[in-house]
Amino acid sequence: MTSTRIASPSDASEIAELLVAFNTEFEVPTPAAAVLADRLSTLLHSEDTFAILEGGPARGVALVTLRRNVWYSGRVALLDELYVKPEDRNHGIGSKLIQHLFSVAKERSLALIEINVDEGDIDAQRFYSRHHFSAADPDTHERAFYYYREFE
Amino acid sequence: MTSTRIASPSDASEIAELLVAFNTEFEVPTPAAAVLADRLSTLLHSEDTFAILEGGPARGVALVTLRRNVWYSGRVALLDELYVKPEDRNHGIGSKLIQHLFSVAKERSLALIEINVDEGDIDAQRFYSRHHFSAADPDTHERAFYYYREFE
Repeated sequence: MTSTRIASPSDASEIAELLVAFNTEFEVPTPAAAVLADRLSTLLHSEDTFAILEGGPARGVALVTLRRNVWYSGRVALLDELYVKPEDRNHGIGSKLIQHLFSVAKERSLALIEINVDEGDIDAQRFYSRHHFSAADPDTHERAFYYYREFE
Repeated sequence: MTSTRIASPSDASEIAELLVAFNTEFEVPTPAAAVLADRLSTLLHSEDTFAILEGGPARGVALVTLRRNVWYSGRVALLDELYVKPEDRNHGIGSKLIQHLFSVAKERSLALIEINVDEGDIDAQRFYSRHHFSAADPDTHERAFYYYREFE
């Protein structure tokens, strides 16, 4: 039996705690755990968001949102966050989460998984390359930067 | 009266022709116009995809998909494509499309607009910077690369 599983809406609080820990570790301002838990509880009830957890209590989480895209018949998944607790790193938990995500992608006929990786985070870039992600466009062989404008 | 407007599902064929022209111009393999028109017709009926057109017949298009995200209460928009016909460039049509997108973002309480811009496409990077997009994370001041893995 594997301890890697799709989260249910009742896991919202546990996931929220992991996301707060993630922001706190990287010194990024974070919404309160209760706010995130509320949102997650709604999101995890929908078809368009799912999370994968490893361990009980959870040692790591992958949070994924889905959208449509004109270039593919299947849906496109964005890996919003992949986080493993500091004390549980270097035990392959990130890889277990990613492998589980690949199974879900195949089951649900997802077309693509996307993730944005910091320019200087060479470890994360290696991790995703090892798991068959690429930054180079197949046609232009060029990488792309993520640009954004916030309104909220 | 402005000639910039939200597309209706009946504009699907015209948008498909623009997307094929876009791929052809940049020598990228493209699905047939009929396939794209079919998909667009479905997508434009949904809540999660919209397009903005400029001119009649259209001289440019912005294609946008929406998703949820745990970090924001509003939805997040991804600008999948922004294309202006070669013969109509340098007349501010791209800016008109972007400004119209900003109005829609405010009307619909969108939290964020995202776009991936090629590393070497300095003109596009200048265009988005001029329209208040940023590549640098507000907290880490770092840029991020777009990584993906295809399954389709």
